[in-house]
Amino acid sequence: MENKDLICENLSIDDNGVLNFAGVSTVELATKYGTPLFLMDEERIRYKCKTYLSAVKKYFGESSGVLYASKALSFKRIYEIMKEEGMGIDVVSQGEIFTAKRAGFPLKNAYFHSNNKTDEDIDYAIKNGVGTFVVDNEEELVVIDKIARQNGVKQKVLLRLTPGIDPHTYDAINTGKVDSKFGSAIETGQAEEITRLAVSLKGVDLKGFHCHVGSQVFDSDVYIMASTVMLNFIKDMKVKLGFITEVLDLGGGYGVRYIESQPNMDIESNIRLVSEHIKNTVKALEIEMPSIFFEPGRSIVADSGITLYTVGTVKRIKGYKNYVSVDGGMTDNPRFALYKADYTLLPAYDMNASREMTASIVGRCCESGDIIQENVKMPETIKRGDVIACLTTGAYNYSMSSNYNRIARPAVVMINDKKDYVAVKRESLEDIVNLDV
Amino acid sequence: MENKDLICENLSIDDNGVLNFAGVSTVELATKYGTPLFLMDEERIRYKCKTYLSAVKKYFGESSGVLYASKALSFKRIYEIMKEEGMGIDVVSQGEIFTAKRAGFPLKNAYFHSNNKTDEDIDYAIKNGVGTFVVDNEEELVVIDKIARQNGVKQKVLLRLTPGIDPHTYDAINTGKVDSKFGSAIETGQAEEITRLAVSLKGVDLKGFHCHVGSQVFDSDVYIMASTVMLNFIKDMKVKLGFITEVLDLGGGYGVRYIESQPNMDIESNIRLVSEHIKNTVKALEIEMPSIFFEPGRSIVADSGITLYTVGTVKRIKGYKNYVSVDGGMTDNPRFALYKADYTLLPAYDMNASREMTASIVGRCCESGDIIQENVKMPETIKRGDVIACLTTGAYNYSMSSNYNRIARPAVVMINDKKDYVAVKRESLEDIVNLDV
Repeated sequence: MENKDLICENLSIDDNGVLNFAGVSTVELATKYGTPLFLMDEERIRYKCKTYLSAVKKYFGESSGVLYASKALSFKRIYEIMKEEGMGIDVVSQGEIFTAKRAGFPLKNAYFHSNNKTDEDIDYAIKNGVGTFVVDNEEELVVIDKIARQNGVKQKVLLRLTPGIDPHTYDAINTGKVDSKFGSAIETGQAEEITRLAVSLKGVDLKGFHCHVGSQVFDSDVYIMASTVMLNFIKDMKVKLGFITEVLDLGGGYGVRYIESQPNMDIESNIRLVSEHIKNTVKALEIEMPSIFFEPGRSIVADSGITLYTVGTVKRIKGYKNYVSVDGGMTDNPRFALYKADYTLLPAYDMNASREMTASIVGRCCESGDIIQENVKMPETIKRGDVIACLTTGAYNYSMSSNYNRIARPAVVMINDKKDYVAVKRESLEDIVNLDV
Repeated sequence: MENKDLICENLSIDDNGVLNFAGVSTVELATKYGTPLFLMDEERIRYKCKTYLSAVKKYFGESSGVLYASKALSFKRIYEIMKEEGMGIDVVSQGEIFTAKRAGFPLKNAYFHSNNKTDEDIDYAIKNGVGTFVVDNEEELVVIDKIARQNGVKQKVLLRLTPGIDPHTYDAINTGKVDSKFGSAIETGQAEEITRLAVSLKGVDLKGFHCHVGSQVFDSDVYIMASTVMLNFIKDMKVKLGFITEVLDLGGGYGVRYIESQPNMDIESNIRLVSEHIKNTVKALEIEMPSIFFEPGRSIVADSGITLYTVGTVKRIKGYKNYVSVDGGMTDNPRFALYKADYTLLPAYDMNASREMTASIVGRCCESGDIIQENVKMPETIKRGDVIACLTTGAYNYSMSSNYNRIARPAVVMINDKKDYVAVKRESLEDIVNLDV
């Protein structure tokens, strides 16, 4: 019988009733490293990379590939793993490029995104040999062309287009629509304009197009719709400009399971479905088959991570609500505060206890909105010092963390083959004042 | 004739049409320090401190005082200024205590808040001589008592109570209600229970009570209502326990002007109104007049600060919307993403230009929700490289900043007597990887 708590296969319960993650006792790790603590399952990260890569190579051929969208979780060790797995990376800032470089990641396999690359960013990326720029708009294209020529480089580029698909996911993480700060819209003719410009410029080498339809997408239909729009645009550019598209990058967005009611996606079969559609469409349109890229971020790391907290105050307000406060909060996980994001929280210290108390799990920040999740079931007996786990926190948690309230950011501990090691050190009080004059 | 752009008196326009802040050209500062850049007006910070302190001393007497709620903006230089101005401080974490200590702030004048102080926090604060704890709940009180006794200290404490006032401000920054993660509720009897416990404990010295009614409160009625509830509770404790309250801390919450339609609060007259009510109520209830404390944070620093950005891409999506992107975003100001907070944005480079374009001012993060403000009026001619200013960013901007997208955090430059100096250094790429193993 399936245990409904174990929403990811790297979770288990040991003989003491303690939640294990990647085969290791969460309570032991909390004791060893302190809390709040981010745990990352290295084997699952690698498994996810392999799953994507093998499916993409199998269905789209060897020239296709997978880029890890590193804004989901960015630190040196992640880029080392991506290098070893043969992944490309999507980077969005000098900070991500610098980190990848420090990790020895070959930057020729990096794709530089962002809706607003500064001149300095562009120069930095070109000088560091970032392989491909994903160009957001015409103004940026002109600057890239100029700086590339100044550096004596013909810079490979993709153009980011908005196919006009609304994936019906949460509005603020919904980026395929025409009315978006990202990309050039096909519908308005601006995509064609930027393509005409790109093929005319000496400093850039146009390889193809990129789109990104949104986040937490569980349905291949969205990719199928987007690829239809993109392939028709590719056909259009072939007819109008004689331009042969070598690369079509379909972006990221595959959903992950935060709560039991969400599915565990079968990446391989989803990519197969998309590939069948693309191959048929390419044939029908009589265009050349481009290399296909995907850019999973959340999908690689989200359920490869959990956060451990220690319970502090348990507050029962008579006639109102219960609050279980933890030693972290919106400083390490702002996603409930930002999007009312769903999370599963479990009493890691005693998974066999019956859970009869409904509580809001709240953080330690001086801010009412500092909530991790509402209406969570916890044992009536939960008390100060107990360790609880928040699942599926590998993506957009550490990467969005702050020092609000001058709270130190947690360590990130990686687990591989049941051995734990520190990937990012816990911030110290000295670190916090490091920039203060 | 009032210029409607100049919502705070430290703003002016020079002969070149450039926005000046605290008497200095914003464009020159942007050139000198780069952008994004936080500017803080030291004279205004000091003026606000003096305004609060003189009003509180005048209307409530010398034993009353003002605590700067340092979560609004916390770094070493701020605590030096607070020390020089004779302010107390409200701190919420080891990080804030550590920073204040480094600045040489006398910690006997610090009040330690937080809904969830860990055992380690409590021990750290006691060992460092933090003068007063503001105790959130009974469980915490028991731990403070124990650790104080272990340290051979009788720790001064206030008890944080929830008076049950709904200030009708934004829900997530609304903390005076009974159903809150903060404090012990009067309505449920829990406030009386914790008071009974506090007077019985050997490790704590109960001085009085604290409440906090919310944020962006423009109306003294809220403080008048809250003080009525609190004074009646004080009377009740005198009658039931013979406990004489020495301190009543009414928290923070006075509003600041983010946009023209909001008022510029007259702090002095508001405090006078509250004082008249309190004095009358104290007399009517036949209780001893307590010392009164206020805890302004936002009110001290918000309009003492602005943020400068450099414009990048200006995107006009035909038939849809305009987007002006800047070189910062939710990494330095997450308040629109979190609360849809209001801000005033101005074309600092040319304040005389007519503004006929309506645009969303968006950040550079790879996230659709990375917006600073929507429906902003900007010149049609605005272009890459122009400097724009976001006003009233002194509170909860730098303090909430993150490295999301591995974007480096801006510098904070302080201006005093038209001279500028760095208070917090700009984060470097090296700083960003500092904790990566």
